[in-house]
Amino acid sequence: MARYDYDLFVIGGGSGGVRAARVSAGLGKRVAIAEEYRYGGTCVIRGCVPKKLFVYASQFSEAFEDAAGYGWTVGDTSFDWHTLIANKDREIARLENIYRTGVEKAGGITFRSRAELVDAHTVRILAENRLVTAETILIATGGRPAPHKALPGRELTITSDDAFHLKQLPKSIVVAGGGYIAVEFANIFHGLGVETKLIYRGAEILSRFDVDLRRGLHEAMERKGIEIICHDVFEKVEKSQDGRLRAHTAKGRELVADQMMLALGRTPNTDNLGLAAAGVKTGPVGEILVDAFSRTSAENIYAIGDVTNRLQLTPVAIHEAMCFIETVFKDNPTEPDLDDVATAVFSQPEIGTVGLSEEAAAKKFGDLDIYRAAFRPMRNILPGREERTIMKLVVEASTNRVVGAHILGIDAGEMAQLLGIAIKGRLTKDVFDRTMAVHPTAAEELVTMYQPTYRIRGGERVA
Amino acid sequence: MARYDYDLFVIGGGSGGVRAARVSAGLGKRVAIAEEYRYGGTCVIRGCVPKKLFVYASQFSEAFEDAAGYGWTVGDTSFDWHTLIANKDREIARLENIYRTGVEKAGGITFRSRAELVDAHTVRILAENRLVTAETILIATGGRPAPHKALPGRELTITSDDAFHLKQLPKSIVVAGGGYIAVEFANIFHGLGVETKLIYRGAEILSRFDVDLRRGLHEAMERKGIEIICHDVFEKVEKSQDGRLRAHTAKGRELVADQMMLALGRTPNTDNLGLAAAGVKTGPVGEILVDAFSRTSAENIYAIGDVTNRLQLTPVAIHEAMCFIETVFKDNPTEPDLDDVATAVFSQPEIGTVGLSEEAAAKKFGDLDIYRAAFRPMRNILPGREERTIMKLVVEASTNRVVGAHILGIDAGEMAQLLGIAIKGRLTKDVFDRTMAVHPTAAEELVTMYQPTYRIRGGERVA
Repeated sequence: MARYDYDLFVIGGGSGGVRAARVSAGLGKRVAIAEEYRYGGTCVIRGCVPKKLFVYASQFSEAFEDAAGYGWTVGDTSFDWHTLIANKDREIARLENIYRTGVEKAGGITFRSRAELVDAHTVRILAENRLVTAETILIATGGRPAPHKALPGRELTITSDDAFHLKQLPKSIVVAGGGYIAVEFANIFHGLGVETKLIYRGAEILSRFDVDLRRGLHEAMERKGIEIICHDVFEKVEKSQDGRLRAHTAKGRELVADQMMLALGRTPNTDNLGLAAAGVKTGPVGEILVDAFSRTSAENIYAIGDVTNRLQLTPVAIHEAMCFIETVFKDNPTEPDLDDVATAVFSQPEIGTVGLSEEAAAKKFGDLDIYRAAFRPMRNILPGREERTIMKLVVEASTNRVVGAHILGIDAGEMAQLLGIAIKGRLTKDVFDRTMAVHPTAAEELVTMYQPTYRIRGGERVA
Repeated sequence: MARYDYDLFVIGGGSGGVRAARVSAGLGKRVAIAEEYRYGGTCVIRGCVPKKLFVYASQFSEAFEDAAGYGWTVGDTSFDWHTLIANKDREIARLENIYRTGVEKAGGITFRSRAELVDAHTVRILAENRLVTAETILIATGGRPAPHKALPGRELTITSDDAFHLKQLPKSIVVAGGGYIAVEFANIFHGLGVETKLIYRGAEILSRFDVDLRRGLHEAMERKGIEIICHDVFEKVEKSQDGRLRAHTAKGRELVADQMMLALGRTPNTDNLGLAAAGVKTGPVGEILVDAFSRTSAENIYAIGDVTNRLQLTPVAIHEAMCFIETVFKDNPTEPDLDDVATAVFSQPEIGTVGLSEEAAAKKFGDLDIYRAAFRPMRNILPGREERTIMKLVVEASTNRVVGAHILGIDAGEMAQLLGIAIKGRLTKDVFDRTMAVHPTAAEELVTMYQPTYRIRGGERVA
């Protein structure tokens, strides 16, 4: 008789947890997984997927405008928020079902319950108030929008979680934050016809991204009519007499809108998980501390995904799950490879980026050749849309290797995915140069920038 | 005093000729170029550029349909052909001017005239009826839609050249041909509301492309409502009493439509150029025969681009121009590199492809691993659009190198451009596998196909 009820117990049914449960069950392991809310986690339920559906919805307003330049006359258009929400919810329910049944079809047990650690091998299934034991435990409880406990009136504000279920589309909104979630939602709301402002503490949106993308997106958003306020923060939010919200800022501004959305980072979900009882240590922001193989301070307990606060991205959580399987169940210790991870920001225009920003590369390598192009994509010309695409390659001068690729423009996310292959393959700029253009595309610009736009030597721009 | 009027005389102001003239003039050479019609050539004037503008125009009808799934109600829409033509013509005129003035700004002389060879160093400028001489002559006269001289009633039909200037949009059209031009125009006309049929002699459209793309596009076009007739050809076209056209086919069909478009390949422009007088030999379809350095049978005369009937693509002509410059003016003999040229078909859905088809790779390598995915892209889900994306990687089994990548779906052309870099860099499948996904994108499928879908061994599919 087995010493434990399960070979593996997974806490958290998001992308990482479900992948680990499904694959380990498929290997014949006795696996259970518990999820307190809905299978699919942040990505499927209140993140990547519904967000991207909202992005698609919000892009139609520009398409309707652009049609005129191509000879189309479009009658009156209107947008119904409830239709979008209902259609989105139906798709999310479908995906949630795929996630949950995937585990079950592989032979895993799924609990719809919160689960907490009692000790290093024991988990309490709260909905059933029973204890189960497992040889290995994987924590994949993800994260949530960071609360802003110090903000007076915070209970009047919403987060991205709430944005997916608003009873009605506001006429106006202020989004607080400068990260990708704030930027994406500002563009979504604007595209759906909401008067949108964004307020951010820092000097420029999207810190850590390449500066050309940051400035370029800022300008593009302002040109659309999104007001961006930098160097300022909410100090208080209150309800005004007409039912709208009024935010007072550190610099004395008063911003009035129907909704205020806080997108001020995310917090790992580690409260009341019984971590201390199990000997699992956490770090400064509550994240579970893990070694290079995702193992926690408790020998038989691992953690993957957003709860570890490494790179908070769905594919990273899935990759960490697969490495966990290799390490624990295939006797093949495997460290997640988090180098040169391509990412996208589904702003409008989109951002796609992989590798080092110019700033980071200059610090690391000193000598760089920078290839940069800014142009109106062909699609924008007949509509008279001024929005420009920016493409930039950061090349290490001594080796000619492309160490960063950065795009602002239509389809930038798709492009970053495939540039990621070239960068992972450590290809040099001359391979880009030897690649024949595909005409007419936007991406052909990336293989036809034959001369550096400027050079960085010793970390400084020289020409 | 120089022995010749010019160091270089270029006949033909398309992409290849203009590039050669502009760059060589920039090197300080005494350069002239003659163009009988409009600077820009096929690509700018009656090919890639206006075609893609038409593609953009024709995509709005599906966007209007898809909007409903995202909560939008769109009023009555209508399309005005004359607006599209006028806006397109204005953009083409702008580009034409850029092409011509680019040469002039670099110091080259531009003639708006037909030019013909008198001997190996002498050119007649017909519009001015004068002779000029040049040390080196470059022929870049391009090609034109192949005439179908044997077809009774051919004078009633149009070609792609005419399609850019139709007085009115037909209500119905039959496009004859199965190549990319036929397929692109069939999709354009359909998207603009024209009842569209395509008739093609062969067994399946787009010969030489990977069979999955050929079948997948065929099905997608039929699902939209484009009727595709294979294994049949026009035998006669005549005007019926109501003014419409009637085509009789080899298999006894009668097809009636407002317009009939022939897209049956292209012919090099070598008629009446004085080639024989200059000692320039042509091949079976009238193409100018050249060696690996684009040199003709006359020692001082070179030819590039479509007139040589190598790969009839704009970027190839430009690349050949740059190699010509290296060879002739920089003392650096350079052969054009025509391996692994990525291409796109701007059908709807789009095709993007680079490297070898499965069939060609099976012949060349024998043992292959094929990775293939077919899925509904996220954008299509809420609108209920059934159109699927197909992605396929052809991997040489013995080396694990990706030797072909084939995509049918949204943005396939952009993707093919960037996959072209990975293929040019001879990257192996494990680099694709080690590349982190960007979620949610379509292209992430290309880096997450970890197991072969099937295998080819000794040229045969085994599992």
